[in-house]
Amino acid sequence: MLSYSRSLQIEWGDCDPAGIVFYPRYFAMFDHNTTMLISKASGLTKPQLLKHYDFAGYPVLSTQAKFMIPNIFGDTVEIESTFTRVGRSSFEIRHELKKGVKIAVEANEVRAWVKGAADDKTRIKSHPLPEDLAAKFRGE
Amino acid sequence: MLSYSRSLQIEWGDCDPAGIVFYPRYFAMFDHNTTMLISKASGLTKPQLLKHYDFAGYPVLSTQAKFMIPNIFGDTVEIESTFTRVGRSSFEIRHELKKGVKIAVEANEVRAWVKGAADDKTRIKSHPLPEDLAAKFRGE
Amino acid sequence: MLSYSRSLQIEWGDCDPAGIVFYPRYFAMFDHNTTMLISKASGLTKPQLLKHYDFAGYPVLSTQAKFMIPNIFGDTVEIESTFTRVGRSSFEIRHELKKGVKIAVEANEVRAWVKGAADDKTRIKSHPLPEDLAAKFRGE
Amino acid sequence: MLSYSRSLQIEWGDCDPAGIVFYPRYFAMFDHNTTMLISKASGLTKPQLLKHYDFAGYPVLSTQAKFMIPNIFGDTVEIESTFTRVGRSSFEIRHELKKGVKIAVEANEVRAWVKGAADDKTRIKSHPLPEDLAAKFRGE
Repeated sequence: MLSYSRSLQIEWGDCDPAGIVFYPRYFAMFDHNTTMLISKASGLTKPQLLKHYDFAGYPVLSTQAKFMIPNIFGDTVEIESTFTRVGRSSFEIRHELKKGVKIAVEANEVRAWVKGAADDKTRIKSHPLPEDLAAKFRGE
Repeated sequence: MLSYSRSLQIEWGDCDPAGIVFYPRYFAMFDHNTTMLISKASGLTKPQLLKHYDFAGYPVLSTQAKFMIPNIFGDTVEIESTFTRVGRSSFEIRHELKKGVKIAVEANEVRAWVKGAADDKTRIKSHPLPEDLAAKFRGE
Repeated sequence: MLSYSRSLQIEWGDCDPAGIVFYPRYFAMFDHNTTMLISKASGLTKPQLLKHYDFAGYPVLSTQAKFMIPNIFGDTVEIESTFTRVGRSSFEIRHELKKGVKIAVEANEVRAWVKGAADDKTRIKSHPLPEDLAAKFRGE
Repeated sequence: MLSYSRSLQIEWGDCDPAGIVFYPRYFAMFDHNTTMLISKASGLTKPQLLKHYDFAGYPVLSTQAKFMIPNIFGDTVEIESTFTRVGRSSFEIRHELKKGVKIAVEANEVRAWVKGAADDKTRIKSHPLPEDLAAKFRGE
């Protein structure tokens, strides 16, 4: 299965009055990793991808996260994201945020491949993943 | 067990290019509900609470969330948060974000009661919950 | 000129490691006030407004802000927003964030009324404000 | 005067339902550039800097920004930040966010060098900039 990794610096604005990352920020970091992972698989930026496959996005259906080691501003961390399941119209990604060799935060998310109803953004329907893209997600 | 509920309007800035709430924002909403729930239990604002009990905070150890119905800017939603377990040095809260009578998003989070090492914010240690506060969390 | 005011509580997640509001968060607060002010004028939510007047939004062209008194989590503040100029295709709003009777933060922003090119979100063109709405902005 | 530049990719989560960057996010990007610029000058990360000079931070006193060209998710932009004035206890920085060769967003901010009162985060006092650091800001 394909994976993508990037290193980033924890910013002052990512952190709360306790001096550590405000945990919703981790999900924003993971979301961008998912986008970069899919870009790596497809060779397309997200705007190109939405146009090429004529779909509405890949919203999160569910996520589970564990926060084991706090990170403070100025820390450099590595986030590795890997497909762990590629289904018919959904897929799963595992994110590991590492501080040195230790996993500080981990998350497993399920995402759907969706098309939207033109006029009603709240009626989003899952849709089969394009076969060529699914194969790339699996690293084939 | 004690619960707290508030209604809020989804803001333009909470939403992504698909026009629906960017999911990390839900965790920020839930985090504030946790703070309001604990304020309701204690009768203290968060700054007063940190001072009164001389502790460092109640960071999230883990969370599980399901996103069932998208919400768009302008929607009014209700978030109800309830203690579901009050342990020795950790506790659990369930959040339900409702759009009308339907649950749009739900999350279950585990939080620790912690004290910090004065000089090293990354060495946070869990600590027994004050007995009087634990009783209030349980709604006793 | 029309104005709109709301009171809100500063959240833990709005604040940085210095314990005070991370200043980009003020602009998110002001942005929502602008939306609420325009809703008050039009009697429409933002999604209804975009549909009714068939336009793309009212992006900020420029802003000037002064930060005079820091605010910490738990503080209750009042944000009052007032139209200060209503032009042909742009308008100005003044935001005052008050802590008690003192102005803690003030901002003056210029916004354009725009329509988008269907295929290219980066080619946004300013457009005359609908006359009926401009009159409501002026409080006529 | 010293300057610092970095390139970054606009994230999905930086953007609003119009598909363009939600403007408060630009200030978060600029804030991190200010931190990186000061790190470049001092050779210290922000946590090291706060400890070394025993101060509370460099909050923004005022800012002026112009938004000339919208940026969408997937865009790669360059942010260049330069000291434009180094005073006794305050300094100014100019940020230019470029898309290719064009300036898309520009901002000029004034920041204070402050020490906090130990017990009251709302009573922040400006303080003379350390001489060695001021010289580095000026690029001497």
